[in-house]
Amino acid sequence: MKAGVLFSGGKDSALAALLLAPHYEVEVVTFVSGAGRNLAAVEAAGAALGLAWRRALLPGEVLGAAIDRLVADGYPNNAINLVHRWALEALAREYPVVADGTRFDDRVPMLGPDEARSLMDRCGCAYVRPLLGFPRAEVDRLAGRYLAIERGETGRIPNGDYECELRAGLRERGIDPTPIFPSSHEQTLVRGRKR
Amino acid sequence: MKAGVLFSGGKDSALAALLLAPHYEVEVVTFVSGAGRNLAAVEAAGAALGLAWRRALLPGEVLGAAIDRLVADGYPNNAINLVHRWALEALAREYPVVADGTRFDDRVPMLGPDEARSLMDRCGCAYVRPLLGFPRAEVDRLAGRYLAIERGETGRIPNGDYECELRAGLRERGIDPTPIFPSSHEQTLVRGRKR
Repeated sequence: MKAGVLFSGGKDSALAALLLAPHYEVEVVTFVSGAGRNLAAVEAAGAALGLAWRRALLPGEVLGAAIDRLVADGYPNNAINLVHRWALEALAREYPVVADGTRFDDRVPMLGPDEARSLMDRCGCAYVRPLLGFPRAEVDRLAGRYLAIERGETGRIPNGDYECELRAGLRERGIDPTPIFPSSHEQTLVRGRKR
Repeated sequence: MKAGVLFSGGKDSALAALLLAPHYEVEVVTFVSGAGRNLAAVEAAGAALGLAWRRALLPGEVLGAAIDRLVADGYPNNAINLVHRWALEALAREYPVVADGTRFDDRVPMLGPDEARSLMDRCGCAYVRPLLGFPRAEVDRLAGRYLAIERGETGRIPNGDYECELRAGLRERGIDPTPIFPSSHEQTLVRGRKR
């Protein structure tokens, strides 16, 4: 069974894909709005995991709606959820099983139980979250066991997290993203697979 | 890392243990109140999965409290949750990681997010639910792919489900369990592993 896994190149989505790989024909997919964006490091992360990787288009109007939301709210949670849900639905048009790296402890992005059921009912897909039953400490321990991980603040690390897109979109509108996002948000990028 | 997995011999706990086995030193554990209870089929299910199996004691006072609850409520949900939580806590005294086969769609037994966090905080364990992020259809598809499964109503199939214990406990008190439990509740027992 083919499974499309949302993939930022970070440790959580990478671990989710690794846990699914023995049981599904996994493809990892990174959604970005700009065709010109450099995703070489994300592609390399997919290759390091031995997984098929591809980029997919996050349309300008979806990113625009998320940035509208970001500006209206003054904080990023709803905007990130909006992009995440759109990406899951887009993936569900192509794969019978869609997956992501959301964990038990995550708050954003996160679909509630009713939203997850609605996604499956509307799209006729199975939505699988292999890390949903794992607390953060176990996710980090397993990720550290299987993955060589680089860490750094958003914007300093070339992963495919939605936050990069949203920050860039704000800057294009002449809005400083600094006060809208948490002052410290460590991102991760998978640089290799430990054997 | 050692992981103790609550195990009834049914498809869900078996699949949960199988998914964890590449990443943990898994032991599957069946809690029963009577030392004399025949668990040969459950032991055989563990052996079919290539996993270390053992029985553990559900004390008479725990089963008694659950049956009190069952009688007071007139339905089994809270009684089953009571036994399940006690078993998880007992397991957490022995293993750094405890796990079970609860799924995304399960209602009983099920710990809410706050209860799961409380278990981990109180016991210093990680509580892992490998099927929590899997909808029922995917659990059943994967179980069918990896496991040879026998199906039947509670009491007709020799697995280690809590319902058997609770029904027996009611009968010992001269109470007919029939009206308290759902009239139809299909149980499963793993009879082998498909390769």
